[in-house]
Amino acid sequence: MNERIEIYDTTLRDGSQGEGVNFSVDDKCRVAEQLDAFGVDFIEGGWPGSNPRDVAFFERAHQLKLTHARISAFGSTRRHTLSCDSDPSIQALLKAETPVITIFGKSWLLHVTDALRLRPEENLEIIEDSVRYLAARVPHLIYDAEHFFDGYQSDPQYALATLRAAAVGGPQCIVLCDTNGGSLPDTVARVTREVLEQIAVPLGIHCHNDGELAVANTLAAVSAGAVHVQGTINGYGERCGNANLCSVIPNLELKLGYNVLGPEQLLKLRATSRFVSEIANLSLDSRAAFVGDSAFAHKGGVHVSAVERNPATYEHIVPETVGNRRRVLVSDLAGRANLLAKARELGVELNDEQRVLDELKRLEHDGYEFEAAEASFELLVSKLRGAHQPYFELLGFRVIDEHRGALMPMSEATVKVKVGGHVEHTAATGNGPVNALDNSLRRALQRFYPSLAEMRLVDYKVRVITSNLSGTASLVRVLICSGDRHAQWGTVGVSANIVEASWRALVDSVEYKLARDGVVPIDGGQDDVPSVSASLGLEEAII
Amino acid sequence: MNERIEIYDTTLRDGSQGEGVNFSVDDKCRVAEQLDAFGVDFIEGGWPGSNPRDVAFFERAHQLKLTHARISAFGSTRRHTLSCDSDPSIQALLKAETPVITIFGKSWLLHVTDALRLRPEENLEIIEDSVRYLAARVPHLIYDAEHFFDGYQSDPQYALATLRAAAVGGPQCIVLCDTNGGSLPDTVARVTREVLEQIAVPLGIHCHNDGELAVANTLAAVSAGAVHVQGTINGYGERCGNANLCSVIPNLELKLGYNVLGPEQLLKLRATSRFVSEIANLSLDSRAAFVGDSAFAHKGGVHVSAVERNPATYEHIVPETVGNRRRVLVSDLAGRANLLAKARELGVELNDEQRVLDELKRLEHDGYEFEAAEASFELLVSKLRGAHQPYFELLGFRVIDEHRGALMPMSEATVKVKVGGHVEHTAATGNGPVNALDNSLRRALQRFYPSLAEMRLVDYKVRVITSNLSGTASLVRVLICSGDRHAQWGTVGVSANIVEASWRALVDSVEYKLARDGVVPIDGGQDDVPSVSASLGLEEAII
Repeated sequence: MNERIEIYDTTLRDGSQGEGVNFSVDDKCRVAEQLDAFGVDFIEGGWPGSNPRDVAFFERAHQLKLTHARISAFGSTRRHTLSCDSDPSIQALLKAETPVITIFGKSWLLHVTDALRLRPEENLEIIEDSVRYLAARVPHLIYDAEHFFDGYQSDPQYALATLRAAAVGGPQCIVLCDTNGGSLPDTVARVTREVLEQIAVPLGIHCHNDGELAVANTLAAVSAGAVHVQGTINGYGERCGNANLCSVIPNLELKLGYNVLGPEQLLKLRATSRFVSEIANLSLDSRAAFVGDSAFAHKGGVHVSAVERNPATYEHIVPETVGNRRRVLVSDLAGRANLLAKARELGVELNDEQRVLDELKRLEHDGYEFEAAEASFELLVSKLRGAHQPYFELLGFRVIDEHRGALMPMSEATVKVKVGGHVEHTAATGNGPVNALDNSLRRALQRFYPSLAEMRLVDYKVRVITSNLSGTASLVRVLICSGDRHAQWGTVGVSANIVEASWRALVDSVEYKLARDGVVPIDGGQDDVPSVSASLGLEEAII
Repeated sequence: MNERIEIYDTTLRDGSQGEGVNFSVDDKCRVAEQLDAFGVDFIEGGWPGSNPRDVAFFERAHQLKLTHARISAFGSTRRHTLSCDSDPSIQALLKAETPVITIFGKSWLLHVTDALRLRPEENLEIIEDSVRYLAARVPHLIYDAEHFFDGYQSDPQYALATLRAAAVGGPQCIVLCDTNGGSLPDTVARVTREVLEQIAVPLGIHCHNDGELAVANTLAAVSAGAVHVQGTINGYGERCGNANLCSVIPNLELKLGYNVLGPEQLLKLRATSRFVSEIANLSLDSRAAFVGDSAFAHKGGVHVSAVERNPATYEHIVPETVGNRRRVLVSDLAGRANLLAKARELGVELNDEQRVLDELKRLEHDGYEFEAAEASFELLVSKLRGAHQPYFELLGFRVIDEHRGALMPMSEATVKVKVGGHVEHTAATGNGPVNALDNSLRRALQRFYPSLAEMRLVDYKVRVITSNLSGTASLVRVLICSGDRHAQWGTVGVSANIVEASWRALVDSVEYKLARDGVVPIDGGQDDVPSVSASLGLEEAII
C-alpha cells in the first residue's frame, strides 16, 4: 500500500490573507462543507483571537455536518509577558472548541531578536510551554515552525533547537514553513531530510509561492519524508499565495504515487476549485494546471490531430481523472462526454443529445457558464426536451432608481405578466433594482403560485466578461443563488445589460423552484381575476 | 565570474499558442523591441511556414533596431517525403533570413510511430539531414528535441539516438523539451545530467507548466548543467503555458547566482511583464511571483509591523531589484501599523491618525474594503485632513431600466449636479443602470472638467456582503477600476442599494482623477450656464 499523505487546507485562514479574498461567515461555512466533501483531512478555519468574524465562524462550525475533515483553529504561541492561562489569544483557541489546534512559533533568530525582541532562550521556553499547554487540552496539536527554512539557513542549530522545544511539548505534527516563499526545491529537500534525522515527530510542509516554486517545494519536502501538506485551493494566500492544493494533490497522487485523497475524490478537484473561486468571487485562471479551462485545451493544429489519434501525445494525464476535460479551441466548446456525464449526474435523460450539445455550445459562446448554475442547466435541458411548460409570460418590466438630495435612493419595479388568461401588473420597491424586480415578480406570481412566498435570494454575483470571439460589446454574467427551506439552487443570466441578465437568472430561479415542487402551470382561458394592487412596502431581500 | 545562462524568449511563438493570446504584426514588433531592451539573447518570432502573419513579421523584423537580441525563426524538420531543398517549410525558414533558426524533431517513439507513422530510423535520418542542411546555411542553429523527457522515460536509448543524430548535423545548441509539461524536477535534473554525459553540444531546456512545475523544472535543468533557457513572459503558452521567464530569470540571477541579464536589466522585469500583458490585452495576475501587484503586498498586521522593522522578515528579495515595490493593504485584518505604513507609502501625512483609524474602522465595519480601492482610501484621508475640495454637488439622479415585450431593455439615467454656481441636468443611456449613470455623470461634468473625457471604466465588481456583524440588512460592495492613458485606479462604494453603491464608487473615481491631475474645483458664485441637452445615443462602455 502507498504511503498516506495528510492534506491540511488553510484556504479559510491563510488563503483569506490574499489580496481581494474575503469570506463572510456564510462563505466560510459553505467552503468548509465543500472541502469536507472533497476529502481533505483538516480545515483551518481562522484565527479566533484575531477578529470577530473568525470567532463567529467557530461558533457556527459546531453545526457543520462534516463527514471526514476536522476543523482546526490557528493561533500564535503565548506572549512572552503572559502565562498560557492568562493569554487571551491562547484562551480564544481553546474557546473555539475545535478538535485540532495549530500554533506557530519563531524559528529564525532574526525574528526573535528583531521582531519579537526576545532573548533566544526565552523564545524556546515560550514554544515548549505553549505546545505543552495546548497539547494537553486538545486531541490534536500541530506546531507550525514559521520561517523554518530561512531560520535554518541562517542558524541551523537554533532552528533545530526550536523544533526540539516544540517536540518536548508533545505535538502530533511539526510543520516546516517557508513563510517568505523564497526557498528552492533542493534546499527544501535537503533541510527536510536533515530535520528528519533529528526530530522524531511526523513532519509537515507549508510553502508560499514567492518564487513560483511552492508546488515544487511541497513535492520536494514530501519526497524527503514529510507526511503532512498544508496549502490552499487555487493557491490563494498572502502576496503570491500558498502552495496550490489543486496542483499538489494530483501531482502527489498521479505522478508520485502517494495515497492522498484517492481516485474517487480526485474527480472532484476541478469542481472544488471552481466552487471556491466562485465563493471568493475571483475568476479562476484559465491556465491553472489540472483545473483550468485551458489546461487541456488544444489550439495548435499539429497538437489537435495528434491528440485525436492518441491523447497521450499532448496530454500529461487523462483530464477526466481530475474532473476536467479536453477542449479543442475554435470548434468544440462543450464535449459530448461532459454533457452526458452532467446529464447523468442530474438524473436527466437525453433523447436528443446533439441538439442539447448545439444549444449548449451556442450559449457558452455567448458567455453562459453552467458550473455554478445547475438549475439553469436543468431547465435548459428540460426546455429542449419539450418537457418544460412556462409558468407565465412577461409583458414588460420597468425599474426606477431615484436619489434626491440627501435621502437614500429608492428602487421601484413594476412588472406586468400574464398567467393563464390573467394579466397581473404589480409594483414593489427594494434595496436596489434587482431586489425590487425580484420582489415585484414574486408578488405578481404569488397568488397563482403560493409556494413562491417561501423563496428567497441567497446570493447574487456579477462579473463582467469581456467578449469572446465576437469582439462586440462587453457582457455581464449574473449568478444568483436562491433557496427555500429544502434546498439552494444556482441560476445564470447573461446580457449586455445587468438588469436584463439579472432578470433572466431570476426567472430561471422561479421556474426551477416551481418545476421542482411539481407545481402545474396555470393554463390560459380562465376568467380574468382583478389585479392585486401595488404595494410599496420595503422588503428585506438582498438587492 | 558566474556561469552565463542564455535566455531564449518564445513569447511571440509558443506564447501566442496560449488561449486568448493573439498578437498582430505590429504587436509582435513592439514586443520584440521591448524584449531586446530587457536584454534577452534570442527572440523567437514565429513559424514562417505556418501562417501569413508570421511571414509578415519576419519581413518587418529586418527593420527592427535591436541592440542585443537575435531574432529566431521556428520550424519543423523536413517532411519525410521531401528533401530539404524541396520542403517548403524548410525553405520558408531560410527565406525569413534570420540570424538564428530553431527546428524541432521527434524524440518519442510514440510520436514517431503514432503521429508521424514513420520507422524509427527514418526519423533519425530526417533529424540529422535537416539539422545539417540548415546549420550550413544559418549562423546559429538550435535543435529542439520535442517530448524529450517523455521519450527518454519510455525509451532512453532511442531518445538519445535522436540527439546524436542532431549533434552530427552540427547545431549550436540542443534543447530538451518537456512538451506535455508533466515532468517532475527530479526527473528533469537526472535526465539532463545523463544526457550531458552522452552529448557534447551545449544543452538547453524548454518546459511547460501542466504540473505547475515549469519554473522548478527549468531551474533543475540549469542546476544539472543546461546553459540555455527557453520560456515566455508571464508564462503565456499553450494549455497551462510555458516556463515563466519573469520567475525563471530572477530565480537564476538572485537565488542561484548565475549571470543572466545582470542586475541593471533585472530592474526592468516588472515593466516588461506589464508591457507584454498590456499588448496581449490580458490582465496580469496580481499574485504573479516577483512582478505581481500583490507580490510584496502585506495584509496581516503581524507581517506589516515586522516588515516595517526589517523588510527581510517577510520579503524574500528586495522588491526594487525587479522593479516592484512594497505595498501595505488596508484591511480589518490589520491595525495601526498598516494604516501608518500605507499613509507613508502614499506620501500622505497623518496629523490625526486616531481619527483616520476610527473612521477607517467604522467604514470597514460598514462593509468598506480598501485593498482594491487605493484611490478611495487616498480620497478618504484627504477628506479627513480637510484637504479635499469637492468638485460638484449632487442634486439627484434617476435611472430607469425598461423592458417591453421582446425588445432588449434600455437603461437611461438622468443626473442633476451643481458645479460652482451652475446647475447641470443631463441624461444618457447605457447597457445597464451603472453604465448609464457613469455616462450621464461624466457628460454632466465634462464641460467643466474636460479631462474626464479620457477616463474609462476598466472593471466593475459587485459583491453581496451578508451577515457582517451588525446583523441588519445585507449590503452590496461595488469595486470599480477606472483608467486613463496614464494609470488605473480602484474605488469602492458600499450601500444596501447596488445603484447607490456604484454611484459612490463612480464619484470617488471621478474625484480621484481630477485631484491627481491637479484640477482646481470650480467655485460657486458664477453665472449659470444653460444646461447641455440630453443625449440618448447608446454608449460603448462596460456596464
